[in-house]
Amino acid sequence: MIGRLPECLYLIGFTPDSTAQMQFHDKARFPRGFRCASRNVGLKPSAKDVALFVSDVDAAAAAVFTRNHFPGAPVILGRETIKGGVLRAIVANSKCSNVATGAEGVEKARRMAAAAAKDVRTTADKVLVSSTGVIGVPLPIEKIERGIPGMSSELQDDPLVGAEGIMTTDTHPKALSASLGDATIAWVAKGSGMIEPNMATMLAYIFTDARLDAGTLDRLLRDAVHVSFNMLSVDTDTSTSDTCAILANGHAGAVDEAAFAEALTAGCVRMTEILARDGEGAEHLIRASVRGAASEDDARRVAKSLVNSPLVKTMVHGADPNVGRLLMAVGKCFDATIQMDATNAWINGFEIVRGGRRLEFDDSIVRSTLKAELVELSVELGVGEFSATAYGCDLTKGYIEENAAYYSS
Amino acid sequence: MIGRLPECLYLIGFTPDSTAQMQFHDKARFPRGFRCASRNVGLKPSAKDVALFVSDVDAAAAAVFTRNHFPGAPVILGRETIKGGVLRAIVANSKCSNVATGAEGVEKARRMAAAAAKDVRTTADKVLVSSTGVIGVPLPIEKIERGIPGMSSELQDDPLVGAEGIMTTDTHPKALSASLGDATIAWVAKGSGMIEPNMATMLAYIFTDARLDAGTLDRLLRDAVHVSFNMLSVDTDTSTSDTCAILANGHAGAVDEAAFAEALTAGCVRMTEILARDGEGAEHLIRASVRGAASEDDARRVAKSLVNSPLVKTMVHGADPNVGRLLMAVGKCFDATIQMDATNAWINGFEIVRGGRRLEFDDSIVRSTLKAELVELSVELGVGEFSATAYGCDLTKGYIEENAAYYSS
Repeated sequence: MIGRLPECLYLIGFTPDSTAQMQFHDKARFPRGFRCASRNVGLKPSAKDVALFVSDVDAAAAAVFTRNHFPGAPVILGRETIKGGVLRAIVANSKCSNVATGAEGVEKARRMAAAAAKDVRTTADKVLVSSTGVIGVPLPIEKIERGIPGMSSELQDDPLVGAEGIMTTDTHPKALSASLGDATIAWVAKGSGMIEPNMATMLAYIFTDARLDAGTLDRLLRDAVHVSFNMLSVDTDTSTSDTCAILANGHAGAVDEAAFAEALTAGCVRMTEILARDGEGAEHLIRASVRGAASEDDARRVAKSLVNSPLVKTMVHGADPNVGRLLMAVGKCFDATIQMDATNAWINGFEIVRGGRRLEFDDSIVRSTLKAELVELSVELGVGEFSATAYGCDLTKGYIEENAAYYSS
Repeated sequence: MIGRLPECLYLIGFTPDSTAQMQFHDKARFPRGFRCASRNVGLKPSAKDVALFVSDVDAAAAAVFTRNHFPGAPVILGRETIKGGVLRAIVANSKCSNVATGAEGVEKARRMAAAAAKDVRTTADKVLVSSTGVIGVPLPIEKIERGIPGMSSELQDDPLVGAEGIMTTDTHPKALSASLGDATIAWVAKGSGMIEPNMATMLAYIFTDARLDAGTLDRLLRDAVHVSFNMLSVDTDTSTSDTCAILANGHAGAVDEAAFAEALTAGCVRMTEILARDGEGAEHLIRASVRGAASEDDARRVAKSLVNSPLVKTMVHGADPNVGRLLMAVGKCFDATIQMDATNAWINGFEIVRGGRRLEFDDSIVRSTLKAELVELSVELGVGEFSATAYGCDLTKGYIEENAAYYSS
C-alpha cells in the first residue's frame, strides 16, 4: 500500500485550497492521457526504484535543471532532450544519481532513455531521464534495462504510484493535482535533502492536459519555479540532479494563459511547502516572508537567509522566540539595503521587533505558537516596495542522524 | 582553576610551531606592559563575566568589526573609539551582547567604557568595549559599574585569566603567544557559535610590545584577518558583535615589518583553527584548501562552500568519504569558474576525484583517516593560479542540542 501525504498537508494545505479559477483535489489524479508505473528492478533491496510517466500522445514540454557545476549525466542528457520541446515519457530511477561518472555515465543515461522509449514505442529523444541517489557510483544500467520492459503495460492512474519509485530519504511519496476549468494539472516530486534548488527542486514533474506550446510552457515554468522551488532550502546544498519538467498533451484544449500561470504557481508553491515540511529530519515548515525591500533580489536574499540560518532553524526546532537570531540573519545580508531603525519583525504574527529594537512581548505565548507545524517569520525592511517568501524547515538531530549515517557507496 | 587548551591544540598545534623568525610559546604569556583581570559581576550566576585588558602605557591600536547590518552597541561605539588610533584598555562582558537595544544600548556601552577608564585612570576614548551573549536584552549596566572598580588592582600576567571572562559557549578559554625576536605577540579570543566572521571573529584581541603605528597596525591586521578569521565558519551565521583589535605598546621597540606580518598571520591562523575546533558541538576541525582557482575570490568562495555545507559537515562527522558531497559543494559555487573535467580532489591526502570523476580508492582506509581530529579537504580547480584555505568544523547533534536549548532571554 502506498503511503499518503500527512493529512494536514494534503487536505488542509498551507497554501489556499483554491484560487479564483483553480481548485486543488483531495486526492491527486492525472490529467487525461497521463499514467505511470513503478517497479523494483534491483537497485534497492525491495522498494520501488524505477518510475515511468507516460503521455498517450506527444506532449509539448519544457524543463529547468540544476545550476550546479557538476550536473549528473541525466541532466547533461536532459538539456539536450528538452531542446526538442516534445516528450512522451519520463523515466527515473532512485538509489543511484549517475553523477561524477564521466562519459560512460552519459552513455548509460542514453541507454536508459532508449530502454524506456522501446517499451513506450517512441524514440529516445522524447524520453526525459532522471536519476537520484548516491553520487559517484556507476549506474547499474543492466538491471534497469532488464527491469523496464513491460512497465508500459502496467500504467496506472494514481500519480503516487510513480512518486513512490523516485523516493530517496522522503518519508512519503508526493503528488498533488488541481482542476482549472476543464483542464487538470498534476505535480509529482521527490526530495528531502541536498536541497537549495537554483533552477528547480531535486525532481519535480508537472503534467497537464491543457494545450500550450513548448515556448509558453518554458516561460510559465520559469516564472512559477522562480517563486516556488527556487525559494526552497532544506540545507543550502544544491543538488547535482535538480530537474523540474512540465508536459502538456493538449487533451483538454486551450486554456486562459493567465489562469493557468496562476494555478501552476499555486501548485508549485504548495509542492514546495510539502518538500520543505518533509526536509530531512524536519518537524516544522518555516515560511519566511520579507516585504518593504529595496529590490526583489534583496527580498529574496533576506528571506533565504532566514530559512538557511542554522541558528534560526535550531531556534524553531527549540520553539524559542530568539529575536537576536532573526535580526542576525537579516543583518548578515551584507549586500542588501537594510536600515536598522526601519526594520520590523514578527513571529507567527506577533510583533517582536520595531525599528530594529526588541519589543517587550509575552514570551510564553510566542513560544507556544512556535510549537505549531507551520512557523511564519515576517520581516518588514521599510526601505522599498519589493517582497519575497522563502520556504525551509527546522534543523534537528534527525538531519544529523540521516546524513552522518548516509553511506556513500 | 582556569581550563587549559586541549593539549593537541596547545602543544602540537595544527599550524607550524615556528616560522623563520617566530616561535609559539607552550603556554600563552603577555608582551611586556600588558596584563588582565576578570571577575563575576553578577551577569552569570557564578562564572567570570567581565574581563579587563590593560596596557601600562597608551598603545597604538587598530580594529575591525562585523559587517552585520545590526551591529551591537559596543561595535557602534568601537568604530568611533578606534578612530583615535590609541587604546589603554579593553573591557568586555559576556552573557549579554547589548545588541538591538537602540540608543540606550550605546549610552550603556559609553558608561561601561567610562567605568573602566576611571579604574585604569585613563579616558573613555581610550577604552574599547565589547559585549557578547544574548541579543535583545538590556545590558545590566549597574551591575557592571558596581563590578569594575578595583579590577585594575587585580591585573595578572596570564592571558587565560582575561579569556575566561569573555567565554560564552566556548568549552575552554583561548589564548596564544609567540616570540618574534625581542618582541612578543599574544592572542586572546572567544567564540564558538554564530560564527562566520566577515570582518573578524566574534571577539579576538591581539597584544604586542612591538612598536608599530596605528596606520601600519590597521593594514597588517586587515591582511592577517583576511586569510584567518575571515575564512572561519562554524555555522555561516555572522554575529552582530564580531570584533578583532590589536594593541601595540612599543616596549620592545621597532620590529621588521615583514616578519611581524608573518608572525601576526600565523597566530591568527592558529587561533582560527582553535576557534573552529571548539565550534559548538564540534568533534573535528575541517581545513579546506583550494588551489588552481581563476581568482582569489573563487578560491575563497569554494573553500568556504566546503566548510559551510551541512552535507560535507555531517559527512566528516560520520567519517564517511562521500565524494559526491564534496563535488556538490564545489559545484554549487555558481559564479566561480569551474570545469568539471579539470577538477581533482583529495580527502586527507588521498586522491578521490580526478577530472571530475570519482576514482576507485580504498574506502576503508580513507574512512579511518576521517576519524582524526583534523580533516583536510583539498580541491584543485585546474583553471588558474589562486588558492585559499577555509576553516570549519563538523555538524553534530551537540550543535542542535546547544542551539535548540539556548534560551533567548
